[in-house]
Amino acid sequence: MSGERIRIVEVGPRDGLQNEPTVVPTEVKVALIERLAAAGLPAVEAGAFVSPKWVPQMADTADVLARLKRRPGTSYPVLVPNEKGLERALASGVEEIAVFGAASESFSRRNINCSIAESLARFRPVCATARGRGLKVRGYVSCVLGCPYEGHIDPAKVAEVAAALVELGCYEVSLGDTIGVGTAGRAKALIERTARDVPLARLAVHFHDTYGQALANVLASLEAGVRTVDSSIAGLGGCPYAKGASGNLATEDLLYLLEGLGLDTGVDFEAAVAAGGFVSDHLGRAPVSKVAQALAGKAA
Amino acid sequence: MSGERIRIVEVGPRDGLQNEPTVVPTEVKVALIERLAAAGLPAVEAGAFVSPKWVPQMADTADVLARLKRRPGTSYPVLVPNEKGLERALASGVEEIAVFGAASESFSRRNINCSIAESLARFRPVCATARGRGLKVRGYVSCVLGCPYEGHIDPAKVAEVAAALVELGCYEVSLGDTIGVGTAGRAKALIERTARDVPLARLAVHFHDTYGQALANVLASLEAGVRTVDSSIAGLGGCPYAKGASGNLATEDLLYLLEGLGLDTGVDFEAAVAAGGFVSDHLGRAPVSKVAQALAGKAA
Repeated sequence: MSGERIRIVEVGPRDGLQNEPTVVPTEVKVALIERLAAAGLPAVEAGAFVSPKWVPQMADTADVLARLKRRPGTSYPVLVPNEKGLERALASGVEEIAVFGAASESFSRRNINCSIAESLARFRPVCATARGRGLKVRGYVSCVLGCPYEGHIDPAKVAEVAAALVELGCYEVSLGDTIGVGTAGRAKALIERTARDVPLARLAVHFHDTYGQALANVLASLEAGVRTVDSSIAGLGGCPYAKGASGNLATEDLLYLLEGLGLDTGVDFEAAVAAGGFVSDHLGRAPVSKVAQALAGKAA
Repeated sequence: MSGERIRIVEVGPRDGLQNEPTVVPTEVKVALIERLAAAGLPAVEAGAFVSPKWVPQMADTADVLARLKRRPGTSYPVLVPNEKGLERALASGVEEIAVFGAASESFSRRNINCSIAESLARFRPVCATARGRGLKVRGYVSCVLGCPYEGHIDPAKVAEVAAALVELGCYEVSLGDTIGVGTAGRAKALIERTARDVPLARLAVHFHDTYGQALANVLASLEAGVRTVDSSIAGLGGCPYAKGASGNLATEDLLYLLEGLGLDTGVDFEAAVAAGGFVSDHLGRAPVSKVAQALAGKAA
């Protein structure tokens, strides 16, 4: 494994900030995304064209994209829930969108008010139009290792939804442990099962650190052959449904693991840590990253 | 690996509380140790016979042991730095002691003011007397994956010190990443190297979560064949030399990983979490355990 390239998809400016109670000003978002891209992160989620009524934190995505100086070679995927969202994304000159499905019927119904099959049917024209316009489409599957309503999720269901997203045109599907309950053995088994229906090279993993398991799950996923990992700078965000719980895996902690394993990420560690400090200062709290906290402690 | 027995050595009441700024009353320590033993933890470090001038948190170890209702089958190791400490341990009816050596010359000199060789020579009569009196002796090696003064530590040096401790009579040697800088690949390589000189069955691992890597390191160690893991309830303690850094791996988080892997610990998870809540209440803070925090969030 040593020496191999690992692609990190930075989700802090979207999945992270979307789940922070504080709304961050547009200029801070722009500066954060630019810092993350300059640090060498190959993909930085830049926002979401969702209803500002439901997600006020993302209301300024068009503004963010208009102001952003985009680096050649960096992807800036934007979450799109429907055709209306896609229209806004196209108007903003977006080159990559992200769509999503749940592996849990109950979660799908409570989260987006439709069944899994209905959500996939809704994404079919979105993906077709996006692909026809030359956009890349990334897929997310949520609740892959557990659901707040159903508990256990069958890995076969995850594989089915992931395969459906690939069939819709997704170049990659990110498997999300939305509530952070998974452990390493199940993460590995999930990937092995999903890889029967979706090529490993098209799978990414997205772990939440709610139960402290995220990095162990990443390690198990790497051992299972996954080479793309989502993470969130400064541990931004989390799942609003899991009260009191910590959220996304921090990019800083992931980088520390990957560098220690001798893997190549192309990311400047110090620059990433600085970007995390920058946004944390604006949120008025310490980064939710043990690495960032340890480095701050050493410097103090 | 699934179904195998993993032995957890609970170090919270000693290694943990020793590094907490708050001195916990004797009756709370006794209650904590009794709760941890009742939860099924097979070994609970109960204290240290060290100078109260240097470690005031452990000044009442003799009292703790006098009041403690010991469960048959549970070990209550006590740290002993020298022959004087051993005399006090014997007077307290201790059945297991722990001795320690560093894998870093600089750390040894700064921490206990003598070379590694001198520290091992000092422990020789301690171990001989202890073994002659029928006591079990456990060994610790510190700084196995990095030193605050020297940085990199040669795994061969760790193996040498571990083998020396076994030669002195230690039934088990716990490899401690004192400053928490290790990552999974190096943890695995360390164990593989050390296992050339010390049987795997005699090796334990002791990780600090300073950089968030503890559970990933445990996973790598399990994969390398280690079956004994140290942890600290509620993440008590840490290294006083690593300012601002978080400390020991939380037992709750370890249990969550091991149960998820289908491994048998013999520990009642809920009872362990309750013990962590009990001592955290006395410290006036939340447990430094993501699992405990997530469960508290769900209950709120």
